[in-house]
Amino acid sequence: MTEPMEPSLVPGAAMTRMASEIAEIPEVVARVLREGASETERVARLIERRRPRFVMVAARGTSDHAGVYARYLIETTFGWPVGLAASSVTTVYGARIDWRDILLLAISQSGAGPDIAAVTEAARRGGATTVALTNEPDSPIAAIADGTLLLHAGPELSVAATKTYVASLAAIAALAGRLAPDAEWAPALASLPDAIGSALGEGRAWLAGDGAEAVAAFARANEALVVSRGHNFATALELALKLKETGRVFADGYSSADFLHGPVALAGPGVPTLVPRPDGPIGASIDEALDVASRAGMDPWIIGEDEVADRPRALALTAPLPEPLTPLAFVVPGLLLVEAVARARGRDPDAPPGLSKVTRTR
Amino acid sequence: MTEPMEPSLVPGAAMTRMASEIAEIPEVVARVLREGASETERVARLIERRRPRFVMVAARGTSDHAGVYARYLIETTFGWPVGLAASSVTTVYGARIDWRDILLLAISQSGAGPDIAAVTEAARRGGATTVALTNEPDSPIAAIADGTLLLHAGPELSVAATKTYVASLAAIAALAGRLAPDAEWAPALASLPDAIGSALGEGRAWLAGDGAEAVAAFARANEALVVSRGHNFATALELALKLKETGRVFADGYSSADFLHGPVALAGPGVPTLVPRPDGPIGASIDEALDVASRAGMDPWIIGEDEVADRPRALALTAPLPEPLTPLAFVVPGLLLVEAVARARGRDPDAPPGLSKVTRTR
Repeated sequence: MTEPMEPSLVPGAAMTRMASEIAEIPEVVARVLREGASETERVARLIERRRPRFVMVAARGTSDHAGVYARYLIETTFGWPVGLAASSVTTVYGARIDWRDILLLAISQSGAGPDIAAVTEAARRGGATTVALTNEPDSPIAAIADGTLLLHAGPELSVAATKTYVASLAAIAALAGRLAPDAEWAPALASLPDAIGSALGEGRAWLAGDGAEAVAAFARANEALVVSRGHNFATALELALKLKETGRVFADGYSSADFLHGPVALAGPGVPTLVPRPDGPIGASIDEALDVASRAGMDPWIIGEDEVADRPRALALTAPLPEPLTPLAFVVPGLLLVEAVARARGRDPDAPPGLSKVTRTR
Repeated sequence: MTEPMEPSLVPGAAMTRMASEIAEIPEVVARVLREGASETERVARLIERRRPRFVMVAARGTSDHAGVYARYLIETTFGWPVGLAASSVTTVYGARIDWRDILLLAISQSGAGPDIAAVTEAARRGGATTVALTNEPDSPIAAIADGTLLLHAGPELSVAATKTYVASLAAIAALAGRLAPDAEWAPALASLPDAIGSALGEGRAWLAGDGAEAVAAFARANEALVVSRGHNFATALELALKLKETGRVFADGYSSADFLHGPVALAGPGVPTLVPRPDGPIGASIDEALDVASRAGMDPWIIGEDEVADRPRALALTAPLPEPLTPLAFVVPGLLLVEAVARARGRDPDAPPGLSKVTRTR
């Protein structure tokens, strides 16, 4: 995919790898749904056979945010409680977790993190059902896990993971939809590639128009906030991390409820704020936090749907998705914004300082 | 407790409520261990009878960080997997979680948060064993839960919760120690008040000496990092939140492993960094992250023990504690530092903007 992104805020800049990989997201999600169908089927049957009662997620960084998405989707769809595993409990403390009746989701685009591999190994030995989500079929975690969902994202060359993040969300949603075909949101899975493609185009148009002001505001600031709730709490965490990694903006992602328990003290006119806001009850609950923060002078930019069409500073996406699937579309204009902010700050989003593509922590 | 804190960085400032409540922490922890013993016994018997297999924590803000501590202590001591509950799954999505075999810990100093009460109610109806940790015996969550551990902290007047945070950690540790008297760390519970008192005195002396430079550096900066791992990941999160709330410093708390998966891009000489670092394997694993970050120019201040006695910029506490109990002592000099930073920035730590003592989110 090589179509140019407008506007290029660094005059003469070639398209970054990050931008071209964002542009691939609709096709990557289509591949997860199409080419991943047989893997999804195998893993679904494994889960149906093993009947887990609890879910744990082992992941780091961006993949951890895919785990946050999995937590909301699994708890709201199946009622299985979900926890995020702390690797050090296994790798440093050497604790023996009771893994019986647990579904462990190990998420790692490279599949090479020694800590995630160690947790997956311990969980499998301890009786968990282990499922790896990875972009690398020959990776250590794919070899260890009982089942694997591949991300079908192709080579990811930017250090900033974008397409593998959305591919992880798609793989999780496809699995949940296969296990719960009667879930209200499940029939909309097939419309994801088109909806994400639409969000990509509308995001580009926004950044070329009204959104350019948002790019300028985030580029000027050293601190920023991203606030959402529910499934899109993952979107908030991920966009904040990307602002940190690529733009060196101190950005924090919050659920709107946690935001009111302390961090609201940071809100103000000098701290640009981005709010992924789905329509419906979650959007209404996010608005409650925005009302409080606006009294401190916060004036957020919003990525939303119909309900925000008449609000200032809002990008209202037009392709409808059920709320549990909106994170796959909302993140796309957000990533375009982050990429533009990094360039406007004179930074190369493809090569953040101190980071490499595979981080080997224990 | 009214002894004055030295140095007062705002000339002529009276002692803040935050400072006087930090000074009460050793006595509060002594009360939790002494006056809370019968409650701990009742709750321990309840848990022994119900034999949970999985733990969920419902909490917000500072209490959520007590939940992070509980996660590490419970997983490493009992091997029961622990998850942090997302309230919105119950309160906004109305999902029906399978609560059977679950121990729900609801942590709220006020006991009045509608979301925490709603999750506790749903969990109890769904078959969970529910335990409230609260400073208010007559609060809604104490009325709902099967058992209650009181925090015995007395009235907390500063909006910034300090003594109730450490009291929550103490209540969790006391319960875990009662359930696992053979745990290596359990016999040291009785030495907590003295060790914390010692940390209080050494923290004050440090801030009056070498640590004054740390106060000045954090006060000058708008951004800061707090990095640790394991049980003290809770300390990192809590000190970062307090820097945000009271000093309006954009501070982020990280586990050292997650730090390497992205946020290390923020490290540098202009970003003061605080590192709670226990002796032993966790300390060694934190050092690995510090080595990477030091290449970016990060030069952290450390709150630690013997192993850091000869390092520059380090406060080496002298009263020994087993690593799982160090968070109760390490946080105290950290809170003294935060309080001094807030005053040095001309802010009243007792009245952060936009916050009140009881935050009623749903």
